[in-house]
Amino acid sequence: MAFDEKTEGFNVVGTRPDRPDGIDKVTGRASYGADASKAGMLHGAILRSPHAHAVIKSINLDKALALKGVKGVVTRADFAEGLTGENWNVLENVMAGEKALYDGHAVAAVAATSQLIARDALKLIEVDYEPIPHVTDVDKAMQPDAPVIREGQASKAVPAGMHPNVVDYHESGHGDVEAGFAEADLVMERTFTTEATHQGYIEPHACLATLGGDGRGELWCCTQGHWNVQKICAALVGIEQSALRVTASEIGGGFGGKTAVFIEPVALALSRKTNRPVKIAMPRADVFKATGPTASTSMDVKIGLKKDGTMTAAWGEFRSQGGAFPGSPFSFTAMCAFAPYALENVKQIGYDVMTNRPKQAAYRAPGSPMAAFAVESLLDEMCNQMGLDPLEVRLKNASKQGTKASFGPTWDRIGLVECLEAAKEHSHYAAPVPEGAGRGISCGFWFNHGGETSVTLAMSEDGTAQLMLGTPDIGGSRASMAMMAAEELGIPYEHVRATVADTATLGYNEVSHGSRVTYASGLATIEAARDTVKKLCARAAAKWGIDEDAVVWRDGCAVPSGPNAGDFDPLPIGQICRKMGATGGPIVGHYEATPEGAGVSFAVHIVDATVDRETGATSVDRYTVIQDAGKAIHPDYVEGQYQGGAAQGIGWALNEEYIYGEDGRLQNAGFLDYRIPVASDLPMIDTVIVEVPNPGHPYGVRGVGETSICPPLAAIANAVSNAAGVRMKDLPMRPSRILDALDG
Amino acid sequence: MAFDEKTEGFNVVGTRPDRPDGIDKVTGRASYGADASKAGMLHGAILRSPHAHAVIKSINLDKALALKGVKGVVTRADFAEGLTGENWNVLENVMAGEKALYDGHAVAAVAATSQLIARDALKLIEVDYEPIPHVTDVDKAMQPDAPVIREGQASKAVPAGMHPNVVDYHESGHGDVEAGFAEADLVMERTFTTEATHQGYIEPHACLATLGGDGRGELWCCTQGHWNVQKICAALVGIEQSALRVTASEIGGGFGGKTAVFIEPVALALSRKTNRPVKIAMPRADVFKATGPTASTSMDVKIGLKKDGTMTAAWGEFRSQGGAFPGSPFSFTAMCAFAPYALENVKQIGYDVMTNRPKQAAYRAPGSPMAAFAVESLLDEMCNQMGLDPLEVRLKNASKQGTKASFGPTWDRIGLVECLEAAKEHSHYAAPVPEGAGRGISCGFWFNHGGETSVTLAMSEDGTAQLMLGTPDIGGSRASMAMMAAEELGIPYEHVRATVADTATLGYNEVSHGSRVTYASGLATIEAARDTVKKLCARAAAKWGIDEDAVVWRDGCAVPSGPNAGDFDPLPIGQICRKMGATGGPIVGHYEATPEGAGVSFAVHIVDATVDRETGATSVDRYTVIQDAGKAIHPDYVEGQYQGGAAQGIGWALNEEYIYGEDGRLQNAGFLDYRIPVASDLPMIDTVIVEVPNPGHPYGVRGVGETSICPPLAAIANAVSNAAGVRMKDLPMRPSRILDALDG
Repeated sequence: MAFDEKTEGFNVVGTRPDRPDGIDKVTGRASYGADASKAGMLHGAILRSPHAHAVIKSINLDKALALKGVKGVVTRADFAEGLTGENWNVLENVMAGEKALYDGHAVAAVAATSQLIARDALKLIEVDYEPIPHVTDVDKAMQPDAPVIREGQASKAVPAGMHPNVVDYHESGHGDVEAGFAEADLVMERTFTTEATHQGYIEPHACLATLGGDGRGELWCCTQGHWNVQKICAALVGIEQSALRVTASEIGGGFGGKTAVFIEPVALALSRKTNRPVKIAMPRADVFKATGPTASTSMDVKIGLKKDGTMTAAWGEFRSQGGAFPGSPFSFTAMCAFAPYALENVKQIGYDVMTNRPKQAAYRAPGSPMAAFAVESLLDEMCNQMGLDPLEVRLKNASKQGTKASFGPTWDRIGLVECLEAAKEHSHYAAPVPEGAGRGISCGFWFNHGGETSVTLAMSEDGTAQLMLGTPDIGGSRASMAMMAAEELGIPYEHVRATVADTATLGYNEVSHGSRVTYASGLATIEAARDTVKKLCARAAAKWGIDEDAVVWRDGCAVPSGPNAGDFDPLPIGQICRKMGATGGPIVGHYEATPEGAGVSFAVHIVDATVDRETGATSVDRYTVIQDAGKAIHPDYVEGQYQGGAAQGIGWALNEEYIYGEDGRLQNAGFLDYRIPVASDLPMIDTVIVEVPNPGHPYGVRGVGETSICPPLAAIANAVSNAAGVRMKDLPMRPSRILDALDG
Repeated sequence: MAFDEKTEGFNVVGTRPDRPDGIDKVTGRASYGADASKAGMLHGAILRSPHAHAVIKSINLDKALALKGVKGVVTRADFAEGLTGENWNVLENVMAGEKALYDGHAVAAVAATSQLIARDALKLIEVDYEPIPHVTDVDKAMQPDAPVIREGQASKAVPAGMHPNVVDYHESGHGDVEAGFAEADLVMERTFTTEATHQGYIEPHACLATLGGDGRGELWCCTQGHWNVQKICAALVGIEQSALRVTASEIGGGFGGKTAVFIEPVALALSRKTNRPVKIAMPRADVFKATGPTASTSMDVKIGLKKDGTMTAAWGEFRSQGGAFPGSPFSFTAMCAFAPYALENVKQIGYDVMTNRPKQAAYRAPGSPMAAFAVESLLDEMCNQMGLDPLEVRLKNASKQGTKASFGPTWDRIGLVECLEAAKEHSHYAAPVPEGAGRGISCGFWFNHGGETSVTLAMSEDGTAQLMLGTPDIGGSRASMAMMAAEELGIPYEHVRATVADTATLGYNEVSHGSRVTYASGLATIEAARDTVKKLCARAAAKWGIDEDAVVWRDGCAVPSGPNAGDFDPLPIGQICRKMGATGGPIVGHYEATPEGAGVSFAVHIVDATVDRETGATSVDRYTVIQDAGKAIHPDYVEGQYQGGAAQGIGWALNEEYIYGEDGRLQNAGFLDYRIPVASDLPMIDTVIVEVPNPGHPYGVRGVGETSICPPLAAIANAVSNAAGVRMKDLPMRPSRILDALDG
């Protein structure tokens, strides 16, 4: 798909209208996962392992079933048999089989007439556990003496002789890394670690399920991708995909964590067992223990730098644990690490490692922030040591159109240089570093994604439009899609109602992930609107008795053109639609395809931070995000994504972490102990939208949601390290770590 | 659209699989209009006029609003202003303005925290009525001294000098009627009357509405057509059509009566006023008083017959009252009257008359059963008098392909002769009339309808299919549509899940009325499936690297053909779908158009009945329905329609009627006093499906739902008259009327 002329002269795109779900959300009219109810509904609760690793010898359900109000209990035996591949892994996570694999792993579930009774019943289930040795640290899990989590999970890519906990391997790069290091004036190698963090969405997972003896079911749940839920749940309960209708509720945050299923198959199995609708809403502690935080990592990186700032070579090894299952973003970590730089010699290696922790789920640009932390921290340290300006060094080595990327492809039009130049010219970078503060910068990179997309646009008789999307709205996409449809149709934004359709009423849609929605659903919306416009023009042509090609669409009207220019008055959309029934029937446009031109995106963050040398407390005092959006459809929401990524990055960098005890149990499964930044922890986060159009989208859009979280860990670590005068190589930089570093 | 070769060799069509909503309905999982609920929901109740005709001088809401738990009250002032045409009439009916026009007319509505409080609050609303003269009889309403219901409603078609209550007029025919009568050996003229009856659906109207200050709303309701509800409600509450999302619940019967709106705009207005979701469920008495029964009629018909049974001329005048609003089916009554017969001289006149009764709504073949009652009764009486076989006379005069119909068109391929021949050969007609019984036969005719239709068919990755329909399933259409989709796709019926989509997720669909669903949604389903098959074949062609035209679809597989026949193994649908994401994206087929080839349909009913000369009680002892279905997709449901039409006709003929007192108030607003037939009132109703393919449908389908209620009134009247030995000319033939007739 070629980029067309539509980069300027927009009427709606680039403005900042109210979001259509705004009033719903502030008045409570919006329905979230836990807001659904059905007549005869039961409440489900899930019993979870208190052990990090234990053989389940037996489960006795008798006492639970005898409790008045309990209508049914399910265990692994109530799910499909014979699953393989990812379906098998998801089932193993959703309901433990022979072993409990982590603290919080589901082992049984109850449906009862009230939530209290269901929770009481959990206490009556007798599980005979045999605890066995566990491991929760990524480096320890790779050691020869580490306990084996699950045998036979390793892919063929894993080099021979590795511990069975190492389940996947990535290697990419080009050139001769050793020769590159030999050319450098300075070569440094460092080890960095990051802890697992949780997406911290406000809304705990919740769902309402029905499943009958006829194998037909319905599911209401908060998810980033209901077709994916449909596919996985159908497999886990052993029914056909089309037999399960899944509706995505309003969603209270996801950030990648709601791309997976946890409670949904359990609710379906309980519904089938009890012949009643079953609702499950996760308690917050369960969200921490048993959903999908991101991976923790251990990383070695090595860079060679010349005195003039040229990077001669880069190498990295990235070890990533994804819990008791394959699937950590180890390859993304490796691939993103050196992506911002044009390198002649580069090599990156990644390991996917299993531990006794919950299965990691996607968390905003999964894998990339850790890589940037390692690479950009080392680069900062080397610039300091060589007296080079860190921004100039990045500009000198920046990837641009035509660069062969570190992991293989050759870049098309990208905007890293433009972002770095915007940073250089920004008042923040120009300002002197405040007394006592440190300044850090970092680049960040994310792939962005296209993916399967279906959109339908149907006209109403009054000339207003109904836009049906299949990607749950996690960041204001109903507004931005309505804007693009309005732009094409030439009607006011308010005349387009965008709706997220359920799985039974639209073609397949991939999950709202990979920063794909504004790009892919946006492209699909534009194409569906253009399809609609074509049909509107055809109706006008038929009315006028002229050729369809002699009608153009302008400002919401069909207009005769070419040989017929001026022959008829423009025909407004409302007039065409009012008569659609009598002139051929409904006017509807469609798009169903897999767009593949999602442009990659880069960002540069600038941070000023101070450190309290007495307490170890840190303070982020000034923060600027500069990022390429390709084209900002609704600039408010682009800025919101920039600020949100920075805010989550600040938490990850400074305070957030999964804390496991020696016993392998999670010690901080709640917001009182897992410290997410609150408003008073954050400065105003300034934003600059750079627009280097993506050739793969009609308006030039690039995804923006994830790139914004790639630079913060490194930018903040650089600012804090520069303020403290010591290099911080482990996240989070909690006060105790700062004090230890200052003491060291 | 030309009829194609697909009339035999079906795999799925013509079989009798289980309906997909069967388990839902018997286990209570199905959600009807009153089954929806939302957090914070209020309950609405409607205050109704106790007067048949009264000026509303004032309404005092103060005491009602002061009741604890009452959150809001609405009157006419809470609806849109400036409406015209049908929207204005609907509003006038939904909420009275200056006058209450019938017993049961809504005058105000309350929303409260419970239904009990809402109903208590109604008693606190003080309405100052000034009763004025009323009229409820159609003939009296046409008299010069009749009170005027509503001024200025008459269409331009009404002849000069008529009473303002006569609001529309129809006249059609051809030839010279007087000359025709002059040729006849016998000319007879008779007057017939029928009373209003109610569709008697099990489920009272119910809905749940939300409408915010932003003008965006959602509505859940039981309806035969949610796009129509969307359009009307949006107008009545003054919002854009696309801003209102309407979902059709499962429906507990409609028969035409759920094509109109009554409570839905009221619930929306209450929701807007209270900022809360509002549910309204109609009490049964309100259903009788204030929804839409059919019209009552008064009819004069005149026929000329030769000794050889040839009809030389026919004339009829049909007076139809539709309550206090225009819109009775007067023109349908006139047009259907003589449609079964090939007449050289024919004329029919219809009058639409207003009375102080609820606005009539469609009731199964609206207007036609009354016409058949009049014409077929007179024909029976004339055959008796002339000693002619009533079936032979009908065969002799039957309309066939090429006949110029009584109301204008020339018939395409139709099946009346085939139905009459099937009747002649049926064991029922061949059997002697039992001692003491009477036998009646009757023909019946209905137009059938196409209408705007949108259907989407989306494949799942496992090769099962999701079929999205926009016509509420009032007669098993999810099953028959799934069968047609399965037929085209070459997959098992169980692999298709048919869903009725809401207004926000599919193109426009006309109401489930006019017996249009199996025809129009069926045609749309077939076309959407063929569109899907084309895309499936294209994927196979791409995989094989051959031309798309060289791939055919056979038994659920893409098969290379033509120059490539035998080059590759057939590729099953599941294998194509599993890879759809990577081979171009979602596979989805669509149809959006207004099909116009709905074939008309005829039926012949044979009835044996007895009369208890002491009590006047009647008994229908044997009943046979013979009807042309074109092609029966699911014969069970076709037979069910045949039986259902006959059963409703039996009620209408024998016992059902709206009984108004002198005070203009309805005296039997409940199932105890309004006598619908129960199972023990009915014989086994035998059915014969005749299949004369409709050239306008790919499989030959004709609508079957309505024609089945056209002959019963006449067939039963003929049987009863023949049993009693007196001609019954007024319906219902309740015992008192039978006794009066016997006495006369």
